[in-house]
Amino acid sequence: MIVILKQNPNRDQLESLIAWLQEKGVTIHTSIGEANTILGLVGDTSKLDIDLIAALDIVEDVKRVQEPYKNANRKFHPEDTVIQVRDTRIGGGTLTLMAGPCSVESEDQVVAIAKAVKAAGATMLRGGAFKPRTSPYAFQGLGATGLEYLKVARQETGLPIVTELMDITQLPLFKDVDVIQIGARNMQNFDLLKAVGHQDKPVMIKRGMSATYEEWLMSAEYVMASGNENVILCERGIRTFESYTRNTLDIAAIPVLRTLTHLPIIIDPSHATGKYWLVEPMSRAAVAAGADGLQIEVHNDPAHALCDGPQSLKPEIFAPLAQKLLKLHEAVRALD
Amino acid sequence: MIVILKQNPNRDQLESLIAWLQEKGVTIHTSIGEANTILGLVGDTSKLDIDLIAALDIVEDVKRVQEPYKNANRKFHPEDTVIQVRDTRIGGGTLTLMAGPCSVESEDQVVAIAKAVKAAGATMLRGGAFKPRTSPYAFQGLGATGLEYLKVARQETGLPIVTELMDITQLPLFKDVDVIQIGARNMQNFDLLKAVGHQDKPVMIKRGMSATYEEWLMSAEYVMASGNENVILCERGIRTFESYTRNTLDIAAIPVLRTLTHLPIIIDPSHATGKYWLVEPMSRAAVAAGADGLQIEVHNDPAHALCDGPQSLKPEIFAPLAQKLLKLHEAVRALD
Amino acid sequence: MIVILKQNPNRDQLESLIAWLQEKGVTIHTSIGEANTILGLVGDTSKLDIDLIAALDIVEDVKRVQEPYKNANRKFHPEDTVIQVRDTRIGGGTLTLMAGPCSVESEDQVVAIAKAVKAAGATMLRGGAFKPRTSPYAFQGLGATGLEYLKVARQETGLPIVTELMDITQLPLFKDVDVIQIGARNMQNFDLLKAVGHQDKPVMIKRGMSATYEEWLMSAEYVMASGNENVILCERGIRTFESYTRNTLDIAAIPVLRTLTHLPIIIDPSHATGKYWLVEPMSRAAVAAGADGLQIEVHNDPAHALCDGPQSLKPEIFAPLAQKLLKLHEAVRALD
Amino acid sequence: MIVILKQNPNRDQLESLIAWLQEKGVTIHTSIGEANTILGLVGDTSKLDIDLIAALDIVEDVKRVQEPYKNANRKFHPEDTVIQVRDTRIGGGTLTLMAGPCSVESEDQVVAIAKAVKAAGATMLRGGAFKPRTSPYAFQGLGATGLEYLKVARQETGLPIVTELMDITQLPLFKDVDVIQIGARNMQNFDLLKAVGHQDKPVMIKRGMSATYEEWLMSAEYVMASGNENVILCERGIRTFESYTRNTLDIAAIPVLRTLTHLPIIIDPSHATGKYWLVEPMSRAAVAAGADGLQIEVHNDPAHALCDGPQSLKPEIFAPLAQKLLKLHEAVRALD
Repeated sequence: MIVILKQNPNRDQLESLIAWLQEKGVTIHTSIGEANTILGLVGDTSKLDIDLIAALDIVEDVKRVQEPYKNANRKFHPEDTVIQVRDTRIGGGTLTLMAGPCSVESEDQVVAIAKAVKAAGATMLRGGAFKPRTSPYAFQGLGATGLEYLKVARQETGLPIVTELMDITQLPLFKDVDVIQIGARNMQNFDLLKAVGHQDKPVMIKRGMSATYEEWLMSAEYVMASGNENVILCERGIRTFESYTRNTLDIAAIPVLRTLTHLPIIIDPSHATGKYWLVEPMSRAAVAAGADGLQIEVHNDPAHALCDGPQSLKPEIFAPLAQKLLKLHEAVRALD
Repeated sequence: MIVILKQNPNRDQLESLIAWLQEKGVTIHTSIGEANTILGLVGDTSKLDIDLIAALDIVEDVKRVQEPYKNANRKFHPEDTVIQVRDTRIGGGTLTLMAGPCSVESEDQVVAIAKAVKAAGATMLRGGAFKPRTSPYAFQGLGATGLEYLKVARQETGLPIVTELMDITQLPLFKDVDVIQIGARNMQNFDLLKAVGHQDKPVMIKRGMSATYEEWLMSAEYVMASGNENVILCERGIRTFESYTRNTLDIAAIPVLRTLTHLPIIIDPSHATGKYWLVEPMSRAAVAAGADGLQIEVHNDPAHALCDGPQSLKPEIFAPLAQKLLKLHEAVRALD
Repeated sequence: MIVILKQNPNRDQLESLIAWLQEKGVTIHTSIGEANTILGLVGDTSKLDIDLIAALDIVEDVKRVQEPYKNANRKFHPEDTVIQVRDTRIGGGTLTLMAGPCSVESEDQVVAIAKAVKAAGATMLRGGAFKPRTSPYAFQGLGATGLEYLKVARQETGLPIVTELMDITQLPLFKDVDVIQIGARNMQNFDLLKAVGHQDKPVMIKRGMSATYEEWLMSAEYVMASGNENVILCERGIRTFESYTRNTLDIAAIPVLRTLTHLPIIIDPSHATGKYWLVEPMSRAAVAAGADGLQIEVHNDPAHALCDGPQSLKPEIFAPLAQKLLKLHEAVRALD
Repeated sequence: MIVILKQNPNRDQLESLIAWLQEKGVTIHTSIGEANTILGLVGDTSKLDIDLIAALDIVEDVKRVQEPYKNANRKFHPEDTVIQVRDTRIGGGTLTLMAGPCSVESEDQVVAIAKAVKAAGATMLRGGAFKPRTSPYAFQGLGATGLEYLKVARQETGLPIVTELMDITQLPLFKDVDVIQIGARNMQNFDLLKAVGHQDKPVMIKRGMSATYEEWLMSAEYVMASGNENVILCERGIRTFESYTRNTLDIAAIPVLRTLTHLPIIIDPSHATGKYWLVEPMSRAAVAAGADGLQIEVHNDPAHALCDGPQSLKPEIFAPLAQKLLKLHEAVRALD
C-alpha cells in the first residue's frame, strides 16, 4: 500500500500515523519527493482500512498495491477451480448450461421444462422458489413448496438444481439443493455470505447491480474465508444510463475475472438484457469470451397467455440455441 | 398503465394478452393509431408485472401511469409524516441532527461523543454496533456489546439512538433501540424489510448505491405494507463514474421525494462524500434544499492516532457546524 | 407520442396545449381514465420537442411511440447498408478489420505497420493524424503531415484509410481519405456532423462516452439528413462506475442496433478496455455477437521502449489474432 | 507520478522504460518491496501519458501524484479568480444571476425577458442563438439574427450577455458578446477550446455529461494554456441511472472545485433537472454550498401555449426566487 502525503504534513500527525501503522505490523519505506512525501507500506496490509487512511488530514491519496482478497486470488491459487455438482462439472473447460423458469409455478411446469432443457443439452436446472421482487404486492414465489417441485424435477431428469437463497432463516430448507444462488441484491448481505460459507453446498454469487470487480470478489472472499471454497461468480449486468436494455451486460468481466481469480464464471444474459431476443447474441458473445457457462431462462406454460413472456425463451427456441452454443464453444476452444 | 403494441401484432397473442389482463381485473381501452395500437389499462395495476408485459413478443413498450407504491405515496397521504422518537420529532419542520461515531468502539468513546454532540445541538445519537464491511478481514463491529454501550450513552444524555440492523437473526437485540437503520446494501433485502415491518420501531432506510427513487420507495412500501408506517428515508450518495468523492450525493432527492412521498428525508453527507471537509458544504446544501435532517459522523478518541479520521469530524468541529446548520435552517424557513 | 396529463389539469392550459399541437399538424386522440387523461398524438411527431412537452405544468409524462430517426431507421430501410470502400466492403456479412497505430508517428512507422496488418488479414488501415488529447500539453498528432504518411501507406499496401476529423476547418485536408472518423467526444458536435453530411466520404461515428443508442442514431441521422447515407457506427465503450477497464464495452449494442438500424456496426475493443490483453477476448465476443468489423490498435516501433504499449498489440500478436477472428467469424456464420 | 511494477518484471523492458523516462527529463526513485517494485517519478510529469505507461506489460498500475493542470490549479494560484464583465463581477463573493430564455425566439421576446429579469435582480442575460439540438429536425436557433436580438436586449437593459458558441466558424460573430459559453457536448471539442483560448472574451465551460472533475479542469486548461485566463466553470448535471430528473446535479462539484481551482463556479439547475419546479430547491442548495452564481432559464411569451414550458420559469416566478436567493446568499455568507 502506498500513502501519498499532502505537502508539508503536520509533523505530529505524521508521527502518530507512522506509529499507528507500525503497531499494525507493517514496515514503512519513506520516499521524499520534491513536492510530496510517499510512504510505502510493506507487509500484510489486508487488514488496513484504505478509506480510513485516505481520509486523514495529512493524506492526499492512498493506493493499494496488493489485492485485498486472498482465497479468491489467482496469484495464490493459479489453477482453475472446478466444481463437481453431481454428475456435472462447472469450470475447467466445460460449458455449463443452467436453464429453467424464472419462478417455479407448479410441479407440472417445472418438470416439463426440466425434461425439455435436459433434452436440449442443459446440464443444470435453474428455478426460483424464493423470489426477490421489487414490489411487496408481486408474487413472492412458492417458497418451500417450490423447492420440493424442483427436487421432483431433479429426480425425473437427473439435472442438479440451482436456486436462490434470500435469507439465513431459509437455510435449513436448502440442505438438499445442489447449488445455492445468492442474488444480486444480496451480494453484500454479509451475514448471509458468512452463513453460506459455513455450509458445504457450492455457492453462486451474482454480481450486484453496481458492484465493482473487487467488491464482488470480496463477497466471494467472505464465503471462502468462512470455509467454503466452492464459489461461482455470475455476471448479470450492471446499471448504467442506457435504459433500452434492463442492464448493461459486462462481457469484459469474463477475461478480467479469469485473470484476477480462479473461480468459474457464469453469464446470465436473460436478466441482464430483459429481452428474450437478446439472449442468443449475448450468449454467443459470452461463450466466445470464455465464459464457463450460461444461466438462461426457459419458460413453457402453454395454457398461459404470457407463455412467450419476459426474458424467457420457449423450450423449442432453447433447444437449437443450446446446440449452437455447444458448437460455438467447441469452435472457440479449437482456436487456442 | 399503457401498453404500446408492435406494428401488426399477432392476433392470437393479442387476444390472450387481453384475456389475461381482464382476468387480473383491469379494464382495457384500445386506441388504434396510424402505426401502433395502444392499450390503456384502467383499474388497480399495482399487481401487474411491468417487466413481464414489456417482454411479450407483441409489446413494444409499457409505461406505468400510476406509481406502484401506495402507502408511501403522497397522493394518498397528503400530510407530512412526523415521527416521534422519545422527546424529539423527525419531520414536520424540525431539523434532526443525528451524530455519532461510525463504529462504537468502547463505552467511554461513545459516551464522550454522545455528550459532546448533545451539547452541540444534536438530537439523536448514531453509532454502528453491527458493521457491514466490504472485507471479511475488517473489524465487524462490537455487536450486542456495542448496542449496550449505545444504551449507556442514551441514559447519560437522553439522546435516542439509531443503529443498523444487518440480519433478521439480530432483531431480538434491537428491542430497545429507538430507530432501526437499514443500510444501503440491504435496501432490497426484502425479508429483512418485511421483518422490520412487523415490529414497531421506526425504520430508516438508506438508499441503495444504484437504486432509483421508485425502487427506494418500494422498499419503504415493503415495510409499510407489513404494518409499520414509521419509515424514514436517508440519501447517502449514488454510484457514478466520478471517483473523486466516494459517491455522488443526490441533493435533488430531497425535493423530488418531498413531492412523491410524505415520509421524512435525511441526508448523510459523511458516507456520500467520504471526505470530512465536504461534510459542511453538503450539509448546508441539504438544509437549503429542505432536508428534514442530517446524519453526520463525529469521532473523538484523543488517544488514537487516527482521531481526525475518515469522513468523521471531531466534536470541536461539529459544535460550530451544528450551530451554523440550525441558523441556516431558520434562515431557509424564513424565506417561505 | 403519448402525453399523460396530471390529475385535474388546468382547463385553459389543456386547451392551449391541444391548440398548439394541432397547429403542429398532429391529430389528438383523448382517452380519459379513472385517474389520468391521456392524449395520443397521431401523425408526424418527429419535430415535437419531447422535453418541452414533458415540462409543461399539466403534463405528468410523455412517451414517444415512434423513433425520432428516419433515415437511420430499419423500419423504413429494411435491408442492411453495405458500404463500398475501394476494394473492400463494410457490412453485408463481411468482417472488416481496421488495424493500425493510435497515432501516426512517422512514415516508416505507419508503412511498416500497414504492411504487417495487411499481411495479417486487415482490410483497412487506421491511424490518427489529428489526435483528441485530454491534455493541452500532450502530443496533438502530426496533423496534415500525418495524413500524407497514411496516404503513402495506402499506396504501398492498397489498404483504404480511416482517420479522425476533429474540426470543420480541417475538412479540406480529408478530401483523399477513405473513411472519415468522428470521435466519441465529437459525437454531438452537430455542426461537424452536418459538414460531413454535406460531403461524400463514408463517415464512421464513434459512440459518445455516455450516449444512449437513440442519441447515437440521431447523430447518424444528422449526417444522413444532410445527404450522406454512408454512415458506420462504432461502439468504443461507455462510462460506468467500474474503473478496472477504461470503459465498459457494451456488446449488446451490436444486436440492439442490428434491430434498430440498417447501418454497419464496428467494435473498438482497444479504446474500450484500455488494456491490450483484453483486445482478443472482447474481439471474439464482438464477432460472436455479429459485429460487422473491428477497429484494433496495432503498434510496432521496435526502437522504442514503449513498443508493447497501451491498448496496442504488436504486429506479431495481431497476425494470429486476425486469423482466429476470421476463423471464428466463419464458425459463427455457419451457425445460422 | 508513481509506477507500480508487476511482480518479477522483465529486466530489459524495465531498463528501456527507465531510459525512456529519463529521456523525458524525470528523475526516478526505485523502491523495492516484498512483492512489488515501485518507481517514484520526480520532476515535470505533466507531459507523460499516464494511459500509455499504465498499459505497459511490466506495469501493474500508475498513480498520478500531481494534478495534470497548472493554470487552473489553485496550488499555483491561491487567490480566487474574479472576472469583470462590464459592470458586473463573477466570483469573489458575489452571486451572479444569469437569466433568460433557452432559445432566442424574437426581439420582443428577449427584450421583454431581459427587462423582467433585470428588474428581478439578474446580473446577466443568457439566451441561445445557436442551439445544440439532439435532432436535426428540431429548431436549430436563430443564429446570427439571435445574437443581434441579444445585443438589442443588452442595450435596453445594460445586462451583459452570455451565449453559446458551437463551432469555430461562428467565432467572428461572437466579437461583441460578453461571455462565450461552451456547451456540455463541446467540452472536449479541443479545437474549439483552443480557438476561444486565443481570443479575449471570458469563456464559460459547461461540464460534459460524463466528465470527471479532472477532465473538466483540463478543458479549462486548454483555454488557459492558449492565453485566456478568464474561464468560468458551469455544472449542469451528470448522467446517471436515475431517470426521474434529466441528469443528476452534482452539488459537491462546488466545494470540490473550490479546493482544486481558483476559477468561478456557476450552477445550471434548469438543464440539470429538466423540471422547472426543481429549479428553486436546487438553486438554494447551490447557493448554500457556495456557488458563485446560477444560470436559470426564464421564459415569457404570453401568446404562446407553451409559455409555462420546459425547465423555464415565468418572469413572475423568477422575481421572488431571485430575491430569496440573494437573501439566502447573504445568510450563508453571514455564517462564515
